[in-house]
Amino acid sequence: MASVSEDEAMRRAIALAARGLGTTSPNPVVGCVILDTSGAVVGEGFHAYAGGPHAEIVALAQAGERARGGTAIVTLEPCDHTGRTGPCTRALINAGIRRVVVGVPDPNPIAGGGAHTLREAGVEVATGTREAEAEAGNIAWLTSMRRGWPYLIWKYAATLDGRSAAVDGTSMWITSEAARMDVHKLRGTVDAVIVGVGTVLADDPRLTARNLRDGTLAIRQPLRVVVDSAGRTPLDAKVRDSAAPTFIATAADVGADSRGRVDLSALLATLHQRGVRAALLEGGPVLAGAFLAAGLVDRVVGYVAPKLLGDGPAALSGAGVSTIAEAIELELTDVTQVGPDLRFTAVPKMKG
Amino acid sequence: MASVSEDEAMRRAIALAARGLGTTSPNPVVGCVILDTSGAVVGEGFHAYAGGPHAEIVALAQAGERARGGTAIVTLEPCDHTGRTGPCTRALINAGIRRVVVGVPDPNPIAGGGAHTLREAGVEVATGTREAEAEAGNIAWLTSMRRGWPYLIWKYAATLDGRSAAVDGTSMWITSEAARMDVHKLRGTVDAVIVGVGTVLADDPRLTARNLRDGTLAIRQPLRVVVDSAGRTPLDAKVRDSAAPTFIATAADVGADSRGRVDLSALLATLHQRGVRAALLEGGPVLAGAFLAAGLVDRVVGYVAPKLLGDGPAALSGAGVSTIAEAIELELTDVTQVGPDLRFTAVPKMKG
Repeated sequence: MASVSEDEAMRRAIALAARGLGTTSPNPVVGCVILDTSGAVVGEGFHAYAGGPHAEIVALAQAGERARGGTAIVTLEPCDHTGRTGPCTRALINAGIRRVVVGVPDPNPIAGGGAHTLREAGVEVATGTREAEAEAGNIAWLTSMRRGWPYLIWKYAATLDGRSAAVDGTSMWITSEAARMDVHKLRGTVDAVIVGVGTVLADDPRLTARNLRDGTLAIRQPLRVVVDSAGRTPLDAKVRDSAAPTFIATAADVGADSRGRVDLSALLATLHQRGVRAALLEGGPVLAGAFLAAGLVDRVVGYVAPKLLGDGPAALSGAGVSTIAEAIELELTDVTQVGPDLRFTAVPKMKG
Repeated sequence: MASVSEDEAMRRAIALAARGLGTTSPNPVVGCVILDTSGAVVGEGFHAYAGGPHAEIVALAQAGERARGGTAIVTLEPCDHTGRTGPCTRALINAGIRRVVVGVPDPNPIAGGGAHTLREAGVEVATGTREAEAEAGNIAWLTSMRRGWPYLIWKYAATLDGRSAAVDGTSMWITSEAARMDVHKLRGTVDAVIVGVGTVLADDPRLTARNLRDGTLAIRQPLRVVVDSAGRTPLDAKVRDSAAPTFIATAADVGADSRGRVDLSALLATLHQRGVRAALLEGGPVLAGAFLAAGLVDRVVGYVAPKLLGDGPAALSGAGVSTIAEAIELELTDVTQVGPDLRFTAVPKMKG
């Protein structure tokens, strides 16, 4: 088998890692490639689901004896603790791996420290290979672990003139079926979907991740979170059905801000404790405004339909901006056509 | 010289025609290529400015005697009347052209009829070569001539959430300098720029086409039109300065609708009589809504900044849409990045 460079192997490991997106939470996605002493690929693996084997274990099993004296290329620093599975550091050492190449260090205070343990055992550890790409592939998990609350994606749907409903309140459908199917895919990559009680009262959404054509539910469902300061979610609301777990977050449960509303920072901390690493904020405009004003949104995904309404509720309201100089500046990272609609992806710029 | 096909020659003629965009009005843009008897290109021309020679005349002058027995490829049916210049049909016949290939027929009741005159004189006339492209290259002029009022482009600038100013009214600048320079280029391609008196009172814009860096004015300035039902444009408004012609359109001047406001259809008819073939509607939101509600907008050009405001005036208001099913549907024809902003170009879909 032809030998590959460590850089090429890392690129492959990052691609492997991405195959776990949406099913590994609360764990990160990880990919691993094992090279033998001649630099040939002898093992590949990725972490597929929480509780399942880590990427390194899968790759080492495939390599078997050919791993001895070889190199392990791993997108994330190998774990050093015994959780649902044993430490990967131990497995790498036992397999006789001579060198480990790491994409991104593990910020997890419990599982981290792997590089140190490997070096103590005489294994050569190199870091920083394609670090930016490895980081990007795990951005939600890494961000969430570093600061202790979930990576928050605000999703909205609007017309070109920024309306998310007509003046009579009708909104089905602003965007195309293709765009709505894309939203369900997005729900499938997060651990929680968050809406305000106003959205529940107005639209009674199910908030499940499902196939829009036949209604079948995705195997893994995000936690449905209703921000409901005063506990107004009706007992028969669809969001309370058995299709997915639900958390009605009242001010009494998670803590109140000065106005008696659910404290959004406290809510996110609570969700993080419950294993939520990535969450999707789906509305309405006032809740989105509150999260944005508090600087709690990490990514914006907007589905914009090529339509004009001219009147009706805006997609966003009360974001704490009172003059043009205070506008929340975004950096567009992607614009993609989804059916007849456009999907914008952007990240808030850091304030200088 | 190598011979080219008539199809290739038409493509070249369409490209030549486009070089006149912005300076030929109230005339159309026209390109012409002359092929000799062997099919080699012996003359090329385009109409560069109103009052200057037509494309056919320029191309024939270049071809000279080599035009005899040859073919003229023209994007628009050759004119048949004596205006500021003589009829092109006569020039083609006198030059001994055997065959004329036309992109689009001329809808102009005065200048049209060229194909008939040519055929009467024994010249072979073929039509429909690359007609869609030839039509697209002249869309504003053709649309305007066919129905008797200008091709209207609505331009707006807004944030991603559809706001064109912050809640305190500040709007300088929503979009980047690159986007604003692009708007000045757009102004340079139309015959008139239209705003409501509200915009004049709020922003006191100059509405000239100029170089934003050094302030120099473009050689050709569009007519500045203020829709001002009750004549409230201040005497010292910048729009009244000597940099460009100005038309303060009052209800008394152009006619009133049932609410005493300027009748927009009558306004457009008046502008057409004044030679306006393409006009740029620049705001504000209520005037844009009125034009859209009346079905008078032919193209939408939106400059969208990757920013969020959450509050403040919308880019569009009162477009006559009361429920989602009545939304004004657009077909996106282009999305281009302009500096950090995006420029959307779209055309309203015909109602079924």
